[in-house]
Amino acid sequence: METGKVKKTIDTTLAQSEARAFNFCAGPAAMPQAVLEQARDELLSWQQSGASVMEVSHRSKAFIQLAEESEQDLRELMAIPDDYAVLFLQGGARGQFAAVPMNIKGRARSADYIDSGHWAQSAIQEARRYLEVNVVASGQAQGFTCVPGQDKWPLDPQAAYVHYTPNETIGGLEFPFIPDTAQVPLVADMSSSILSAPVDVRRFGIIYAGAQKNIGPAGLTLAIVRKDLLGMAVETCPAILNYQTQFDKDSMYNTPPTFAWYLAGLVFKWLKGQGGVQAVAEVNRRKAEKLYATIDKSGFYHNGVDSQWRSRMNVPFTLADPALDSRFLEQAEQAGFLHLKGHKAAGGMRASLYNAVPESHVDALIAFMVEFERRHG
Amino acid sequence: METGKVKKTIDTTLAQSEARAFNFCAGPAAMPQAVLEQARDELLSWQQSGASVMEVSHRSKAFIQLAEESEQDLRELMAIPDDYAVLFLQGGARGQFAAVPMNIKGRARSADYIDSGHWAQSAIQEARRYLEVNVVASGQAQGFTCVPGQDKWPLDPQAAYVHYTPNETIGGLEFPFIPDTAQVPLVADMSSSILSAPVDVRRFGIIYAGAQKNIGPAGLTLAIVRKDLLGMAVETCPAILNYQTQFDKDSMYNTPPTFAWYLAGLVFKWLKGQGGVQAVAEVNRRKAEKLYATIDKSGFYHNGVDSQWRSRMNVPFTLADPALDSRFLEQAEQAGFLHLKGHKAAGGMRASLYNAVPESHVDALIAFMVEFERRHG
Repeated sequence: METGKVKKTIDTTLAQSEARAFNFCAGPAAMPQAVLEQARDELLSWQQSGASVMEVSHRSKAFIQLAEESEQDLRELMAIPDDYAVLFLQGGARGQFAAVPMNIKGRARSADYIDSGHWAQSAIQEARRYLEVNVVASGQAQGFTCVPGQDKWPLDPQAAYVHYTPNETIGGLEFPFIPDTAQVPLVADMSSSILSAPVDVRRFGIIYAGAQKNIGPAGLTLAIVRKDLLGMAVETCPAILNYQTQFDKDSMYNTPPTFAWYLAGLVFKWLKGQGGVQAVAEVNRRKAEKLYATIDKSGFYHNGVDSQWRSRMNVPFTLADPALDSRFLEQAEQAGFLHLKGHKAAGGMRASLYNAVPESHVDALIAFMVEFERRHG
Repeated sequence: METGKVKKTIDTTLAQSEARAFNFCAGPAAMPQAVLEQARDELLSWQQSGASVMEVSHRSKAFIQLAEESEQDLRELMAIPDDYAVLFLQGGARGQFAAVPMNIKGRARSADYIDSGHWAQSAIQEARRYLEVNVVASGQAQGFTCVPGQDKWPLDPQAAYVHYTPNETIGGLEFPFIPDTAQVPLVADMSSSILSAPVDVRRFGIIYAGAQKNIGPAGLTLAIVRKDLLGMAVETCPAILNYQTQFDKDSMYNTPPTFAWYLAGLVFKWLKGQGGVQAVAEVNRRKAEKLYATIDKSGFYHNGVDSQWRSRMNVPFTLADPALDSRFLEQAEQAGFLHLKGHKAAGGMRASLYNAVPESHVDALIAFMVEFERRHG
């Protein structure tokens, strides 16, 4: 695309979105604009009540209805069976790194973990406070461009559970399959992939996710727990992280993060309006494919993740000449592209393409990248 | 006041506040209207960035500046000395019920707790998971209308800490003094009294508070920890609740609840604009005094808490005839008074008078109560 055309694409999209930037933040990430607009319009008076949704009791009829509706919407979106509890918690995925072993270590003295990079390692480190962790597979030798196939995992049929990280936000690595762990519960940190594509919940014992990528603002954490895994927490598990305790109280054992929950509910409704998870998955596939295609054919940009293992949500890339990094980021920001800098543990660039990032923003980014390469490649 | 006058007071105040109700919710509670208006106005584009504050990385320069400024403002407001850490956490006071013993039980095998009612008892119940709890004083025999004076507390000079609840949100009980625990760290759950009046932070080892009463929206939790109490958490303390871990990472060990933090920062600035804690304390004193005076002189409304122990923040009261309760609540709601129903554990009514509840709203409530009594008393 020519410079003029690039500018026009960018200008038009910016104008359409009322001076909203192209936000590729890895998290807390872009929210659907329609959700923010609704939140803005009713921020001082929710449902004509004269009070903000953040100013009402979580035990009020109106809020309980919101809570129930949001759970119902999520159950529909993900086809969550009735024998799974849906919990709206606090503490993020890092809180769940501790909560998972504290809640279900009762099953056995050790758990199997798959090491796929930064976040899997963080989960492993935390779990070691509570039980014996066996790392049964690691992508370390491959520089986390992939993880050895499941046929090479020495899974322990007596393990309390198997833990993995379907999408590594920093490494840009995504599992192309759901591990088969037979009778051992599979636990997944879906923080950066939840709701981005259909997933068979029945394959999992526990799914958890920090909200700040595909659900809503930071401070809300989802846990989807197969009900037979409730009720076996260790005595020293803090009550706020105890799945059974929270399930018994409809996630209101302690005051929930009501405004974040409300926004999550709006996002779920927005997702349904988009046609549900199947529909956004198709858009997500297109967004990622065209960005990776741009990178691959350029010779200027580079992504080294095995093509089968590339994340649809987080696309890290480097420039042929790292000396150009700061110029790339500067010019990107001037053109309205935010948060493209890679995580400090990875360097380079990263574009996160969660549900709320419109395809037109990815098109604009690609136009910018092509133009930047033309001028500096 | 006559009916016409009551109506006029209410109408004028409602009009002034753009159809905002009189919100006496115990929590999540009313926020300053100016804060909500600013949040609304910049919800889609914070600092002209083209992104909402909830859509930017907590590690971005702009957010880190917000975080630092809010901490600085809080330190000014509460005159927090440098040898105290200020932590912005998740999990609410209930999370701290577990965090406190897990963080500082290293000091000793038992802790002393003061039982002043519902919330103190909840803290006691949770602490028992982690150490031996000695309840050294209780207001149970007095029906929690007061707590026996400190001269009657058999404090253990070897205790890990002494825990108390300066203000009981449900019982409407507030300590008229700060306990003297000599060398033993004093720990206070200030969820419903923080920032409502000046307090000498040096008297405390740890102060913690859920945000949803006097600070901001639910989902943010403050912990103010004397630095010599850092670094002694038990190994099984979840990292997100570990004071040292969070202190080392400026409360960003895990992704913080950024939007709630932002709102807390706006509330701190609003408080400074009101003249600081000393100034709002004077308003709070007036608000509570006039409401209690109305109750006491009525013979129709009743509050049984010992006058020295009455809460300035939460004013529970009953009607002479409980059969009128539902009519009172109905008519109150029609007149724009929200969330006056007492906690289910207490029954009756409750008006919470946190910082963000304007004195004019209390005046309107008093006018309504006087008029209701005239018609039904």
